Amino acid sequence: MGRVALLLFLFALTVELSLGISHEIHLLRPRLASGVHPASGLSCPSWRLAVETNNIINWETVPQACESYVGHYMLGHQYRQDSRVVVYEAIAYAESLKLGGDGKDVWVFDIDETTLSNLPYYAENGFGEAPALPESLKLYNKLVSLGIKVVFLTGKGEDERNVTVANLKKVGYHTWEKLILRKSSDGSTALVYKSNQRKKVEESGYKIVGNMGDQWSDILGTNTGNRTFKLPDPMYYIA
Amino acid sequence: MGRVALLLFLFALTVELSLGISHEIHLLRPRLASGVHPASGLSCPSWRLAVETNNIINWETVPQACESYVGHYMLGHQYRQDSRVVVYEAIAYAESLKLGGDGKDVWVFDIDETTLSNLPYYAENGFGEAPALPESLKLYNKLVSLGIKVVFLTGKGEDERNVTVANLKKVGYHTWEKLILRKSSDGSTALVYKSNQRKKVEESGYKIVGNMGDQWSDILGTNTGNRTFKLPDPMYYIA
Repeated sequence: MGRVALLLFLFALTVELSLGISHEIHLLRPRLASGVHPASGLSCPSWRLAVETNNIINWETVPQACESYVGHYMLGHQYRQDSRVVVYEAIAYAESLKLGGDGKDVWVFDIDETTLSNLPYYAENGFGEAPALPESLKLYNKLVSLGIKVVFLTGKGEDERNVTVANLKKVGYHTWEKLILRKSSDGSTALVYKSNQRKKVEESGYKIVGNMGDQWSDILGTNTGNRTFKLPDPMYYIA
Repeated sequence: MGRVALLLFLFALTVELSLGISHEIHLLRPRLASGVHPASGLSCPSWRLAVETNNIINWETVPQACESYVGHYMLGHQYRQDSRVVVYEAIAYAESLKLGGDGKDVWVFDIDETTLSNLPYYAENGFGEAPALPESLKLYNKLVSLGIKVVFLTGKGEDERNVTVANLKKVGYHTWEKLILRKSSDGSTALVYKSNQRKKVEESGYKIVGNMGDQWSDILGTNTGNRTFKLPDPMYYIA
């Protein structure tokens, strides 16, 4: 998964930040000869865009030359702003919907890096609960107020149900229609697993009006819903 | 289409550039209180990312607050770098393919802002031929050398066939298997039109190993091919 390397570089970045580099300054602007034109010739902003647009796929780790760039992106303002624009668009879309009125309209959310943020875990090697992604929580509250029900669909294992429920509730996600976790016997890719689960949701009478995730495997495949939303995640890739 | 407004702002930008702002300096870095936090609160880098990731759809014009930002993006280095990373990925993918050896492997290219660039037209209000997008031409040459045939699939009308053929040949695209233009009687969306045409291509025995366009309507729908590539285009949206 490349998460160990990621953890290490985010940990290193946190040390760097604690040494006095303000995380208020996001370093997305080109850093000539390092951030933008590293020795490999790779443009890190272009790498991130290619990841977010599903052009670069099946990658295992952030390119070494872009680790600092991605770390600053995630810990700085740009990640939050990028997420905010997606959520504002999703809210405008949700508000425009004519709902069935039968309580069967649902919105599917992925959990990690969509509903909850594991950034503190990666950055500080800390354990404990994951905070909510503030923009996603805003969308969640709007959906609940509109009468759209929420389905959480995650690749986390069924054995993590209790801790996931506790975490969701503690950070502000108080109610949902379904919380679908993966059975340990299910060895399919995330794309196939999530497509199958969404199919079951639709077959049981629900209409998926929206679907949001940080991975393309959350929103591609079948039964993707009326409209999909891709949150940023340049940290890892799940097929 | 919003192309008139676009033309006007790119024209204005060209005037601005000729007044001494070097187009060598791309202004993708945050310009506080203007580029990033305009009065509307919109982050232009976030708007562009949301467009490229298919989160913001059905838009008609670039937000006024982001016209200068998008103009500088298109005329500066970042657009070229972003395109280059996509094409490098596409070349690596093409080189990894095990071809059928029956001459039936094809790669589908959109034309406007994919194979040819209309930027000089938008920026200078000039007429005449459109130059090749240099990165796409590089991919095209690689595909031809690998024995992958090229299908151009464009929303341009059938009445533009002769001028399109002349333009393609003049700027370096010398050979192709098919050049599919839209019949004037076809009133479907680009997504439906292109899906139908790709279906016909597959039904006539070809295997679409790759598919590249600047619009999501080029690469979503049915018969999309083995793998798709999205080139950047924050200038206009085609459903």
